[in-house]
Amino acid sequence: MTHIFISYSLLLLLLLGDRVAIEPGVPCRTCSYCKGGRYNLCPDMQFCATPPVNGSLANYYVHAADFCYKLPDHVSFDEGALLEPLSVGVHACQRAGIGLGSKVLVCGAGPIGLVCLLTAKACGASDIVITDLDAGRLDFAKKLGATSTIQVKTRDTRLLAKQVEEALGCKPDQTIECSGAQSSISAAIYATRSGGTLVLVGLGAPEVQIPIVDASVREVDIRGIFRYCNCYPTALEMVASGKVDVKPLITHSYTLEQTLDAFQRAKTGEGGAIKVMIRCGTE
Amino acid sequence: MTHIFISYSLLLLLLLGDRVAIEPGVPCRTCSYCKGGRYNLCPDMQFCATPPVNGSLANYYVHAADFCYKLPDHVSFDEGALLEPLSVGVHACQRAGIGLGSKVLVCGAGPIGLVCLLTAKACGASDIVITDLDAGRLDFAKKLGATSTIQVKTRDTRLLAKQVEEALGCKPDQTIECSGAQSSISAAIYATRSGGTLVLVGLGAPEVQIPIVDASVREVDIRGIFRYCNCYPTALEMVASGKVDVKPLITHSYTLEQTLDAFQRAKTGEGGAIKVMIRCGTE
Amino acid sequence: MTHIFISYSLLLLLLLGDRVAIEPGVPCRTCSYCKGGRYNLCPDMQFCATPPVNGSLANYYVHAADFCYKLPDHVSFDEGALLEPLSVGVHACQRAGIGLGSKVLVCGAGPIGLVCLLTAKACGASDIVITDLDAGRLDFAKKLGATSTIQVKTRDTRLLAKQVEEALGCKPDQTIECSGAQSSISAAIYATRSGGTLVLVGLGAPEVQIPIVDASVREVDIRGIFRYCNCYPTALEMVASGKVDVKPLITHSYTLEQTLDAFQRAKTGEGGAIKVMIRCGTE
Amino acid sequence: MTHIFISYSLLLLLLLGDRVAIEPGVPCRTCSYCKGGRYNLCPDMQFCATPPVNGSLANYYVHAADFCYKLPDHVSFDEGALLEPLSVGVHACQRAGIGLGSKVLVCGAGPIGLVCLLTAKACGASDIVITDLDAGRLDFAKKLGATSTIQVKTRDTRLLAKQVEEALGCKPDQTIECSGAQSSISAAIYATRSGGTLVLVGLGAPEVQIPIVDASVREVDIRGIFRYCNCYPTALEMVASGKVDVKPLITHSYTLEQTLDAFQRAKTGEGGAIKVMIRCGTE
Repeated sequence: MTHIFISYSLLLLLLLGDRVAIEPGVPCRTCSYCKGGRYNLCPDMQFCATPPVNGSLANYYVHAADFCYKLPDHVSFDEGALLEPLSVGVHACQRAGIGLGSKVLVCGAGPIGLVCLLTAKACGASDIVITDLDAGRLDFAKKLGATSTIQVKTRDTRLLAKQVEEALGCKPDQTIECSGAQSSISAAIYATRSGGTLVLVGLGAPEVQIPIVDASVREVDIRGIFRYCNCYPTALEMVASGKVDVKPLITHSYTLEQTLDAFQRAKTGEGGAIKVMIRCGTE
Repeated sequence: MTHIFISYSLLLLLLLGDRVAIEPGVPCRTCSYCKGGRYNLCPDMQFCATPPVNGSLANYYVHAADFCYKLPDHVSFDEGALLEPLSVGVHACQRAGIGLGSKVLVCGAGPIGLVCLLTAKACGASDIVITDLDAGRLDFAKKLGATSTIQVKTRDTRLLAKQVEEALGCKPDQTIECSGAQSSISAAIYATRSGGTLVLVGLGAPEVQIPIVDASVREVDIRGIFRYCNCYPTALEMVASGKVDVKPLITHSYTLEQTLDAFQRAKTGEGGAIKVMIRCGTE
Repeated sequence: MTHIFISYSLLLLLLLGDRVAIEPGVPCRTCSYCKGGRYNLCPDMQFCATPPVNGSLANYYVHAADFCYKLPDHVSFDEGALLEPLSVGVHACQRAGIGLGSKVLVCGAGPIGLVCLLTAKACGASDIVITDLDAGRLDFAKKLGATSTIQVKTRDTRLLAKQVEEALGCKPDQTIECSGAQSSISAAIYATRSGGTLVLVGLGAPEVQIPIVDASVREVDIRGIFRYCNCYPTALEMVASGKVDVKPLITHSYTLEQTLDAFQRAKTGEGGAIKVMIRCGTE
Repeated sequence: MTHIFISYSLLLLLLLGDRVAIEPGVPCRTCSYCKGGRYNLCPDMQFCATPPVNGSLANYYVHAADFCYKLPDHVSFDEGALLEPLSVGVHACQRAGIGLGSKVLVCGAGPIGLVCLLTAKACGASDIVITDLDAGRLDFAKKLGATSTIQVKTRDTRLLAKQVEEALGCKPDQTIECSGAQSSISAAIYATRSGGTLVLVGLGAPEVQIPIVDASVREVDIRGIFRYCNCYPTALEMVASGKVDVKPLITHSYTLEQTLDAFQRAKTGEGGAIKVMIRCGTE
């Protein structure tokens, strides 16, 4: 991970040489979203991975100190880097209201589906069923703690919803949709219990056709997420305490010089790639 | 309104001869929805207006005492009957989170749009813009307290959203969609501010095509409502205290014998019909 | 009111010469409270009225632009200055959960009790009873909209609670305690309905003896407030829209040179002083 | 456990011979608390353990079917009986808002403190410190999963609060007070972080002297609990899924005929008694 020069070090008790994870978005701190505790919606966010910021693929990188999180000695830079996707899982599970005894459906077993699975478990969910087209991904999800898995073989969204209910023994309280596919969103609506919540994490086509009346009259709330907000401390806590193990998500590693290969690997998913790490450090 | 025979009168302090409004749905009282405070989602609800119940168009009607609400002397039976649509407004505004200083968009100025308008004002909303195709309905909404009105003349949903923003001086915090039309739902999503809430009250086609990515990445929550739950006492309070005046909503009245005419009037909306009252009493 | 030099004017659309109200506390913007939307709890708050800040009794005053709120032309500086106490009322009512149809008890009819009364009404509360030792203050509260008043003549806290229940026709859903007196806090606990909320605004002795078991087993939540947070925009909205009229709260006015007299007046409350204004401007 | 005759068996899918746990309180189902989802506050609750009910120490016992919870085959009657105290833990942790990454203080390591500890862990709390006067109890708590323990040796409540902060590395987000002692409640207030929550579970003297100003100005919410509400399904889920093991809490067992001995044991706590079981069954 990149070296960081700290700006407010005394205030935040960061010292020169501290190892940190960086939360990539720095908001304006002055708008109503920032003041109201939802800084991820700040219209003036500077985010490391999107223009006009050129990204942080460099040996040295300057970042706002209050969006740097000091890593305990036993937490590696690799784990620190994975706080980013894990924070997506934390934000999704919190927006969904997952808690003790929740029955959960996660649609999609890619990297984001997997961090949602790990987080839902850590929140106290008692049963989690996960769906995907790919059997290999489902096997991996099973190893990470999914109670049951469903390989999606039908385009009949009501039938898929029924399979979820059978796997879980009831309709899920919360559903986290990570594929963005229209058919998966529709199945997610049918599957979720009345009064439950569907969180949309995956992004697909800008417009989708969905069974809105079924969601409405059963008061299934539909909520999206945009990145995360106040989630890094929780994600760090989860990793540092050993409550979740994110290391199995890293399947490949590259040096900064091998960046193009790394992007190629991440794009194709070749060799079962889940999370592909680029190590920017000089050591 | 129909005469009611009370079943648990001592418990609930209802006495023979008391004038009451009835909340039409009586739930099972034993399922997890009933115990959890969301009895409107009870799968075993008995509801006066839907099979297998034959409705309450009769001189005498037996109803569960705890779903009867005693009317103060100064509240008329007509007002009591209007607690039903008003409770829809209460449930919608509560699900939307409308409160002090809220900027609100109501889509549709029919009876339900109007009760949502009245309720939003009573909740402390500071500005309410209401939309409709019909100029007459908008004039009426203006009289009931809408801050501004928009006659919908475009099918460009983004343009309509822009008109809302101009009328309100900002994007609405909460939107209550009462038409059920696909274009109106789409415009409602575009119009609502990031982090705001869209409540779907109107029911149209079972499936609609909507800009789900725009809603998701701006964290605009989409919530339906099914009837109402724990809203009658609030609705009665609003009417009894004079906070809202629902009487202007009643445009036509009929006796029980004229029921078919009343339904015809309600169906056509002829003569500017908003709420059409059938008086079931023998006096 | 003091002249303000603006620091981030482009961002916040404030222009040289704009008339503004200032929210006196400016937090650090970087701690977990600031990021989490509860900046009033920021341990590094700089607040105009407390050391090490020397206060804003001056002709010119520099303040963070994002804690300046532009006043519409029809809102006076006096009204702008009253957004400060009104924001206390907004924060108290929001922490209490006052909404449509709420039955509310306000203990104490001093300036803060009165802004809580005004705010509770604006939130849709249907009945508000207010208590005080002083009959004159209660008369004033009645004029501002209290449904009923109780002049406290007993030290029997259970009896006082009973008087509240009789005045309101039921136990209050929410109680806002503005005196800080031990006996008033005890009465407030006894008075509030099971499952209701008691908000402590008044500050008295550091330790008080209270009937904690009665509060606990009836799940009456006890919540304090510290100043306000994200309340100025709502308070401004209330005043600008005419929903509340705060002008009657200003009973006396002084120039900057008469500051000592003004403090004396505020301290003694002589001549029925409620809010005493010091005009810092050079015009 | 007592035999149960079921009243609404078809509806609730209980069959003659099913093994169940019973939730001891049956509310009126018709008051505003029951309809609103807080039936534990119902003023007409019939509760097995308090007059006028004579208790359930009998071979056969009739109970409302919807307050009977069917036990899976692998959950024993002993575990079923422990759903009662565990439900107190669930209600306390839910009222406290304990979730993923929470830092928690539990005051008192008796049976209720221990179920709160187990539940807080299951909710995703990352660190839990528990206090008690007795070293043996603290050793037991450590075995059940407390991160750290503090044997209370001081009457200086601020010092004790400081010890908690040192043990946890920060002030707790949530504190669950299970002793009811005045000094413990005071220490709990000082210990809890600003904006945090203190839940009072233990009941002591009806009136206590507490540092209310410290709680108020730091917005530490104080919430009691009364039994539990909608918690049995969650408690059963926790036990059935293996998320918590309540069996170690049972230290002694008696037959129905040995009831007086059992009460004596529970009263004295002799022999390290935590939960003392009376087996009412005829088998």
